[in-house]
Amino acid sequence: MDKLQTLLNEYEKYKSMNLDLNMARGKPCQEQLDLSMPMMDVLNAGVDVRGEDGIDCRNYGVLGGIEECKRLLGDIIEVDPKNIIIFGNSSLNIMFDCISKSMTHGVLGSTPWMKLDKKVKWLCPVPGYDRHFAITEFFGIEMINIPMNSDGPDMDLVEELVKDEYVKGIWCVPKYSNPDGTTYSEAVVKRFASLKPKAKDFRIYWDNAYSVHHLYKVKQDFLLEILDECKKHGNPDLVYKFTSTSKISFPGSGVAALATSDTNIKDIKKFMSVATIGFDKVNQLRHVRFFKDLNGIKRQMEKHADILRPKFELVLDILDKELKDIAYWNKPNGGYFITLKVNNCAKEVIARCKECGVTLTEAGCAFPYHIDPDNSVIRIAPSYPSIKDLSLATKILCLCVKIENELKKKDR
Amino acid sequence: MDKLQTLLNEYEKYKSMNLDLNMARGKPCQEQLDLSMPMMDVLNAGVDVRGEDGIDCRNYGVLGGIEECKRLLGDIIEVDPKNIIIFGNSSLNIMFDCISKSMTHGVLGSTPWMKLDKKVKWLCPVPGYDRHFAITEFFGIEMINIPMNSDGPDMDLVEELVKDEYVKGIWCVPKYSNPDGTTYSEAVVKRFASLKPKAKDFRIYWDNAYSVHHLYKVKQDFLLEILDECKKHGNPDLVYKFTSTSKISFPGSGVAALATSDTNIKDIKKFMSVATIGFDKVNQLRHVRFFKDLNGIKRQMEKHADILRPKFELVLDILDKELKDIAYWNKPNGGYFITLKVNNCAKEVIARCKECGVTLTEAGCAFPYHIDPDNSVIRIAPSYPSIKDLSLATKILCLCVKIENELKKKDR
Repeated sequence: MDKLQTLLNEYEKYKSMNLDLNMARGKPCQEQLDLSMPMMDVLNAGVDVRGEDGIDCRNYGVLGGIEECKRLLGDIIEVDPKNIIIFGNSSLNIMFDCISKSMTHGVLGSTPWMKLDKKVKWLCPVPGYDRHFAITEFFGIEMINIPMNSDGPDMDLVEELVKDEYVKGIWCVPKYSNPDGTTYSEAVVKRFASLKPKAKDFRIYWDNAYSVHHLYKVKQDFLLEILDECKKHGNPDLVYKFTSTSKISFPGSGVAALATSDTNIKDIKKFMSVATIGFDKVNQLRHVRFFKDLNGIKRQMEKHADILRPKFELVLDILDKELKDIAYWNKPNGGYFITLKVNNCAKEVIARCKECGVTLTEAGCAFPYHIDPDNSVIRIAPSYPSIKDLSLATKILCLCVKIENELKKKDR
Repeated sequence: MDKLQTLLNEYEKYKSMNLDLNMARGKPCQEQLDLSMPMMDVLNAGVDVRGEDGIDCRNYGVLGGIEECKRLLGDIIEVDPKNIIIFGNSSLNIMFDCISKSMTHGVLGSTPWMKLDKKVKWLCPVPGYDRHFAITEFFGIEMINIPMNSDGPDMDLVEELVKDEYVKGIWCVPKYSNPDGTTYSEAVVKRFASLKPKAKDFRIYWDNAYSVHHLYKVKQDFLLEILDECKKHGNPDLVYKFTSTSKISFPGSGVAALATSDTNIKDIKKFMSVATIGFDKVNQLRHVRFFKDLNGIKRQMEKHADILRPKFELVLDILDKELKDIAYWNKPNGGYFITLKVNNCAKEVIARCKECGVTLTEAGCAFPYHIDPDNSVIRIAPSYPSIKDLSLATKILCLCVKIENELKKKDR
């Protein structure tokens, strides 16, 4: 029996098990969610729900969020509380709103992007986060791929492309990036901070989603704080920086924030003050009372890491064992994903996995318009499944990679 | 000493008290907020936070809200759960998003309003809610005043104006309206439901903010359910209906919803699915576990009424005693406001109150562009101040009305 037939027989065996395994989304598992359950007890019926400045957090008002929550999130992303606005539960929603507002009202008084005579363009480091690309696609913004190097996006290309005045922004996940786990180097951050885009309303959308999401206590990536660098380079208004507690407390019930310059804060608050009276301050207070400060956050993140680390290591071990010579993958020090790069068969592997009951994010998801030019990227999200399911799912994934590789050989 | 001088002497007496009283915003008072404090205990660290269909409310997902919360809010506004989407904490924010999305993407595939060759127009029953008008003003939409009659907006005028294809919407607070406490009659609701606007993307923004906000157990206004009427009149997609628990549970930490036709729900979900992964389901669950059902809501609203009723009656008594022949006001059966109509001196009265330490909503606030054509409307919000403060503030307000009236006489 030839190698392919052996692999196919094994595949049929798995298929007959009628599995239903999912490695598609970067969702925390139940054990991780349980870490924050004590937060449910910090605000009870008898507790004082006034903030530190005496404000009743239950009532209307306080557009930008309560001070102590600005301080807590500011500490997480190394920003002064005065440069932070706390929104609702989703940083993605803030990014959507910022782009939407730029379409209808421009940025700091610039021409609304919908009133320009040509389409707005956007730089998209790839592979990247599918939900980012979905936003720019929704607004009809033309997306341009920027290759990711081991130290961040290809900055030569970025510097060249921002000379076009219709290029109005770039998506960045600068730390433990989604999906390839890369952290931008100091040099790259400095080149971003000193960027001189032709468009005055160009903004870097700096999605610092994984700022404290380390897997190890020692092997931790370091990211240079960009707002400060921008100031130093005479570019104070260049960056919108985003963060949230979605993967610190509860994914659907955390708090999200935007950090940026004084001038941008004023600009954003103008539209915020029309859109809402204020976000959920009780939940802001609940987070502060639970975590207290950055140390509380760090302790929580160590507990998350203790749950996530074995899952990442399990996947990496199986990949090491099974795919050494026929695929490439990253070994991230944090974040939520492992990127597996296969040889021009990602779509086929993902479909074959699906047929066997293993769901991965759909092919092309990490690219604008869902087009993976090399048909190579498979995003693995190890957080949600149990160790047992994860082991099985990863083995099946490896098997499918091997099968598709053999099929390719035959084609030649 | 003449009458005016007597009044002015009294005014000086109040002024020397250095008061700081506020009747500006429709904010619940602390006693009302305390009614919902037991809600803080329904979800504690040991509780099961899965929804009725087994979904873990702490994690990502469930874009439109959990079923039991859709049912609860659906019961409040008499709509099938399948026609409801639960959002974050603010119905105002949903309205903003709906208009923003219409500007950039149109409605059900219509031309985005920003791409039209002429400005969009909007009908604004007056007096109305200042935050509504702020949204349409923000988007550069031309606002047209529609006089309010005792049974709702002037429908002859509405029917005439919707023949203009650039008229794309109307603001309505159909029950215990802000600020005049009017509830639209059945005839008016039916005329709305059978409206035939020239613009296919015309929508009625039906802000049902005070649907269960009665002041009395017996004297309750009845509002015909409009989505059902629209269906009957072959106009299923005409209305976006909004509600929230802001004045049922906590103003900043409630849940808000949009109710509309299947077709509109699909259209709205398209943009929602790009803007967010989902709203705060833990808070949705918290509301359901606390209120349980419509009866729970009704019991809560009776407690609110017991706190609010004496405040409304106090203000009305003082007005009766002091201003009988020189001003007009409504006697609402619910909602949050009393509208006082004075004789061409609202601005002067409000300024004079302010000088004496009594803050009212700024003059013109109930009108588009802050222009009250008769300079007559003063919005009184009795909910927030204590009985004692409210009594004092109302007396000062009446005094200021009398003074301005006397000054007017002298001018003649």
